[in-house]
Amino acid sequence: MRQIDLNADLGESFGAWRMGDDEGVMPWITSANIACGFHAGDPPTMRKTVALCVRHRVALGAHPSLLDLQGFGRREMKMSPDEIYAQTLYQIGALQAFAHAAGTRLRHVKPHGALYNMAACERALADAIAHAVADFDRRLILVGLAGSALVAAGLALDLAVSREGFCDRRYRADGSLTSRSEPHSVFEDRAEAVAQAVAIATRQQVVSADGATVRVEADTLCVHGDRPDAALFAHDLHQALQEAGIQVTAGPARAC
Amino acid sequence: MRQIDLNADLGESFGAWRMGDDEGVMPWITSANIACGFHAGDPPTMRKTVALCVRHRVALGAHPSLLDLQGFGRREMKMSPDEIYAQTLYQIGALQAFAHAAGTRLRHVKPHGALYNMAACERALADAIAHAVADFDRRLILVGLAGSALVAAGLALDLAVSREGFCDRRYRADGSLTSRSEPHSVFEDRAEAVAQAVAIATRQQVVSADGATVRVEADTLCVHGDRPDAALFAHDLHQALQEAGIQVTAGPARAC
Amino acid sequence: MRQIDLNADLGESFGAWRMGDDEGVMPWITSANIACGFHAGDPPTMRKTVALCVRHRVALGAHPSLLDLQGFGRREMKMSPDEIYAQTLYQIGALQAFAHAAGTRLRHVKPHGALYNMAACERALADAIAHAVADFDRRLILVGLAGSALVAAGLALDLAVSREGFCDRRYRADGSLTSRSEPHSVFEDRAEAVAQAVAIATRQQVVSADGATVRVEADTLCVHGDRPDAALFAHDLHQALQEAGIQVTAGPARAC
Amino acid sequence: MRQIDLNADLGESFGAWRMGDDEGVMPWITSANIACGFHAGDPPTMRKTVALCVRHRVALGAHPSLLDLQGFGRREMKMSPDEIYAQTLYQIGALQAFAHAAGTRLRHVKPHGALYNMAACERALADAIAHAVADFDRRLILVGLAGSALVAAGLALDLAVSREGFCDRRYRADGSLTSRSEPHSVFEDRAEAVAQAVAIATRQQVVSADGATVRVEADTLCVHGDRPDAALFAHDLHQALQEAGIQVTAGPARAC
Repeated sequence: MRQIDLNADLGESFGAWRMGDDEGVMPWITSANIACGFHAGDPPTMRKTVALCVRHRVALGAHPSLLDLQGFGRREMKMSPDEIYAQTLYQIGALQAFAHAAGTRLRHVKPHGALYNMAACERALADAIAHAVADFDRRLILVGLAGSALVAAGLALDLAVSREGFCDRRYRADGSLTSRSEPHSVFEDRAEAVAQAVAIATRQQVVSADGATVRVEADTLCVHGDRPDAALFAHDLHQALQEAGIQVTAGPARAC
Repeated sequence: MRQIDLNADLGESFGAWRMGDDEGVMPWITSANIACGFHAGDPPTMRKTVALCVRHRVALGAHPSLLDLQGFGRREMKMSPDEIYAQTLYQIGALQAFAHAAGTRLRHVKPHGALYNMAACERALADAIAHAVADFDRRLILVGLAGSALVAAGLALDLAVSREGFCDRRYRADGSLTSRSEPHSVFEDRAEAVAQAVAIATRQQVVSADGATVRVEADTLCVHGDRPDAALFAHDLHQALQEAGIQVTAGPARAC
Repeated sequence: MRQIDLNADLGESFGAWRMGDDEGVMPWITSANIACGFHAGDPPTMRKTVALCVRHRVALGAHPSLLDLQGFGRREMKMSPDEIYAQTLYQIGALQAFAHAAGTRLRHVKPHGALYNMAACERALADAIAHAVADFDRRLILVGLAGSALVAAGLALDLAVSREGFCDRRYRADGSLTSRSEPHSVFEDRAEAVAQAVAIATRQQVVSADGATVRVEADTLCVHGDRPDAALFAHDLHQALQEAGIQVTAGPARAC
Repeated sequence: MRQIDLNADLGESFGAWRMGDDEGVMPWITSANIACGFHAGDPPTMRKTVALCVRHRVALGAHPSLLDLQGFGRREMKMSPDEIYAQTLYQIGALQAFAHAAGTRLRHVKPHGALYNMAACERALADAIAHAVADFDRRLILVGLAGSALVAAGLALDLAVSREGFCDRRYRADGSLTSRSEPHSVFEDRAEAVAQAVAIATRQQVVSADGATVRVEADTLCVHGDRPDAALFAHDLHQALQEAGIQVTAGPARAC
């Protein structure tokens, strides 16, 4: 039976500001990427989000970012690999402390936003992230865009990797994602996003912005928690995947 | 043979700004309290400071603070125990990641600045810090002002504690420290500070601001790394203690 | 005809996070206190909020705060008057730049959160704020809690002051506000808040938490923009005041 | 008689951290670019630096930056022109408040670090900065690298501009600066830097990294305040320029 993991970016509230419907999404996902305070999240929010994951038996992951609260980690910054290594290690450690205090441990690491995009293309940065993950705990799964430099960097260090596909982001013909600043880069329509998810999970393919068929081999699918209909979307997605005969599970990631 | 630990606050550079003479102090101390990014320090600085400690075989400790870079963690903030717990856990975890990547582990936790002072007086905050330490790793030693609520909170959780005395800060008759904002609260004169250190280490007593003899039972003495003459002071202190027959060592802390 | 000003704290979104229903509240208020980036707000948000005020002919004011994004400026910090003076001046200047670029100018300054509360009690801090206001522009109106040290500090410098009353916060018998951490400190019920507002505007009195009648002489009433029903509340309040024969206007503030 | 302005980046201390020898440099320069809190500086430091400039009759300028304290504003960030406009306006306004309180006003604006470099190449960002300057005060002089997009953007808005040359940075053959990350990009040797400054001021030319003669038309020369020998360098530079018959003055900037 084919398997797929459903992951969502959670714990993105900050101080007095709320973001996302973590409670609503939680029952339908299998992996949570938890903000570590650099783009979102703060210590009490991290603690609370870890507890929520434990309660829902959702696998915990760190969601490290560039240090940019005002830009929500979405603005690329020119950083050295050494800086990226240290910032990633810092954030993983901070979140692991909450996991440990809650009696569990982190299962994966997925970079956020601009860091994710930079690590998809720039191998030196990808290597820095992979080294931080390996130096912290070799059992951690490194999550990156399918076909990206980050996945390659993880494999080069013999880390388990999880290749990510996107339900509600439009792909380019080369397998990369269209930029959020382009029109129609995000599927507002829930059914359209669910359809793309099922296409990835069952046939490993999507239709790109310019109509091409693109191969997307994904072990995990991203459920954007900041959609207004995030909980409903997660529910529909979970259901559609099961109906398509796919087992939704954080299950064992591929080693290569 | 009597023993004493010499600790210093290190890794307090931040970004482009330098602070302290870490390299100069390191050979003469036995424990380092490393800034965790909330009042000073940043990920690359934390990494570098951990490496420096490893090289000098100095025991590593976390130096968590209130989140206040502009105020260097010296401005009291009204925080709930839950916030203090979460911020402390976050910072310990972040630093432990660097320790782990360097093949070692943290040995102690000493709160910084305003947090240290607040935890000396307010038991609820002291309990929050002690719980964070215990939840992270029960082998960690909690360092607090001799006679403080923080030491009591650590003992109440069966943590090993280390009672701190100050070489170059003037004491009040009740055993508390005079405020930095008061005149003559810090001994500028190196010899005076060394003399107070030796008095604490050998006779467990100091002379207070108003001339009283005050009992100070200390397991560790603080060497302020931000003195202009910090390295020289650390050297003189180390030498004077040895000449007084005291063994300078991070040694085993007292359990009670 | 009696007059009253209705003010609200606006522009409290930050980066990717939204807060408050600024567009919904704007038609019913006469003065806006705009966050200046220390507790909330960021440069693009400040620009947008100023434009919104200009469009609705709402008087513009600066809403300076302690530097504490994570705590939303609600955590008291021990700061020197010099620090408070400089932080206040900085924030007023930053906001005035947006007002000037939009062809207008600031009309008032109202400290936020913990700074507001500290300035209500501590005269040295109140003086620091009043001096910052006077040094920036003597035409600015200083808004403070009716009966507070801040109002006294403004008057001592011959600044125009506006005494603030609260619609939906419960008063103590001494005219101070009950703490947000106490139960029932905020009226959830809209009608209850409107009734207190009308009582202040028409009879200068409220009923305190313990049933006493308290005199509250207010020139301006605060409409909390972060209520879930903020727009509706502002509308009901505006209507009820007009029906009670009160003119709602930012009008000329009292000089003493 | 030929004229040249000598400018330095000042007020770059932050909180407890010191940077630069502002007092030592001040007597020899004619314009100060004051950090506004985004890459360095904080409200009390800004106030103090403004007072120092007033005392030395040095022209005041804002030194706005990307928001990146940890990276000292030296890491490029991908920002929209709207964000750059608003951040620049914010910082100019904040500093002007201190200038106004000290009885003076800003005379110029010079972007810092990565923002300076980005605005040298990207016209849309340069336009955003120029618009912020013009919207704040059309009398302000915009300072940019000689030959840069920023200078062009200022001229297009009819702003007075000041073209900057560098004493101690090596030029490329195309008139751009070699990157700080390249070896020998900064002249450590004081005499070499002074010689380049005199060459620019008297003959409008420098010798590039690869030996070419490059034309550099500069109205102002940058004195790096973070050199260990900054005060001595500023003194030598001032003296050498005077001996070469150049008048050192903030004088009237060229309008085109």
